[in-house]
Amino acid sequence: EIAEALAIKQQRPEVLLAGERNGLRIRGDLTGGNDFDFGNSPREFLPEKVRGKTIVMTTTNGTRALRACTRAEPVLIGSFLNLRATVNWLRRELPLHLILICSGTHNQAALEDTLAAGALCERLWPYYASGQVADSAEIARRIYPLLQTDLLGAMKHSRNGQRLLGHPELRGDVYFCVQRETVNFVAGLQKDGTVRKLACEAPSPSGDATTV
Amino acid sequence: EIAEALAIKQQRPEVLLAGERNGLRIRGDLTGGNDFDFGNSPREFLPEKVRGKTIVMTTTNGTRALRACTRAEPVLIGSFLNLRATVNWLRRELPLHLILICSGTHNQAALEDTLAAGALCERLWPYYASGQVADSAEIARRIYPLLQTDLLGAMKHSRNGQRLLGHPELRGDVYFCVQRETVNFVAGLQKDGTVRKLACEAPSPSGDATTV
Repeated sequence: EIAEALAIKQQRPEVLLAGERNGLRIRGDLTGGNDFDFGNSPREFLPEKVRGKTIVMTTTNGTRALRACTRAEPVLIGSFLNLRATVNWLRRELPLHLILICSGTHNQAALEDTLAAGALCERLWPYYASGQVADSAEIARRIYPLLQTDLLGAMKHSRNGQRLLGHPELRGDVYFCVQRETVNFVAGLQKDGTVRKLACEAPSPSGDATTV
Repeated sequence: EIAEALAIKQQRPEVLLAGERNGLRIRGDLTGGNDFDFGNSPREFLPEKVRGKTIVMTTTNGTRALRACTRAEPVLIGSFLNLRATVNWLRRELPLHLILICSGTHNQAALEDTLAAGALCERLWPYYASGQVADSAEIARRIYPLLQTDLLGAMKHSRNGQRLLGHPELRGDVYFCVQRETVNFVAGLQKDGTVRKLACEAPSPSGDATTV
């Protein structure tokens, strides 16, 4: 939450603050002081700004969902951007119980989450179909092939997609987030609450971290 | 809940009791006495058994979902069996806010609920698409056309469908519930907690009621 992020910043002034409320960067009116360094737009997190930094992040759904997972292990953070790396990691480890958490937007299910979960389900289906599969996974697996050839078009039918596309500064996020396979590492939530690169498919610099 | 149903029965001995726990009829081990008159299988509710009767019903998901809706009005109970009647009623009334509640099975989303909701969404889409439509409705609307030509086959991919199909006494429920348009009335939750026929498309006997 915002107060927790500010408390960490006070103890460790070198951290950067990131996050949104109502989809927009947390500003002074919510902190009682400075604006957060970043919002929730992935395009803000440029290498020259984040390399070697610890980022403390709080969002309405995403980081709360992660926090709900702190007693699970391992916890990965997946997206279309690192789909193949995440799938390959899961295929190698094949956890006995696999739960895909879709954090949603504004406390509702979000089409883009279901599509990304569906992309994972589709690729992992051969390994899990003989077990007990939730109907929600079946639904996600069925809907992804239907829309995958035009994810950008699908986002125009998503409430969050519509909101972002209608916002001049944020519309680029939609284009950014429907890219597939642009990064080849897996992100994992650590016991100490930080998110770190877990494994790379090819050598890549590491050391960046996000605290949620 | 079971205790509430038993309390009503004590005050009004003429009512019949119906419901399930873990998908099976509530038996003496849960009531501390008699078995319930019916389980949750729709095929048990034969005209000669229920005509003119008040039935007190408690199920794990369905009646709890209905109870959660008691402050809404109107509340309809829809299914594949009365799909057209329900759609026609909604097209005529066109409520400003339409919420489709899928009660699920075992506290999880159920494919059959999503498909029935999708059938409603598909038919009502022209009336609501210009408003704010939840992504979950978009997902349901997309998945129904994909599976509607073989609902029975789809049920083999649903956890509850698999469970029922594997149970000799209950497998017929799956065949029963994927029928479309077998009854032409709308069922509505009344302020007093009873469920009654709201409107008929053609003359039909009425007067049956279920209390949830």
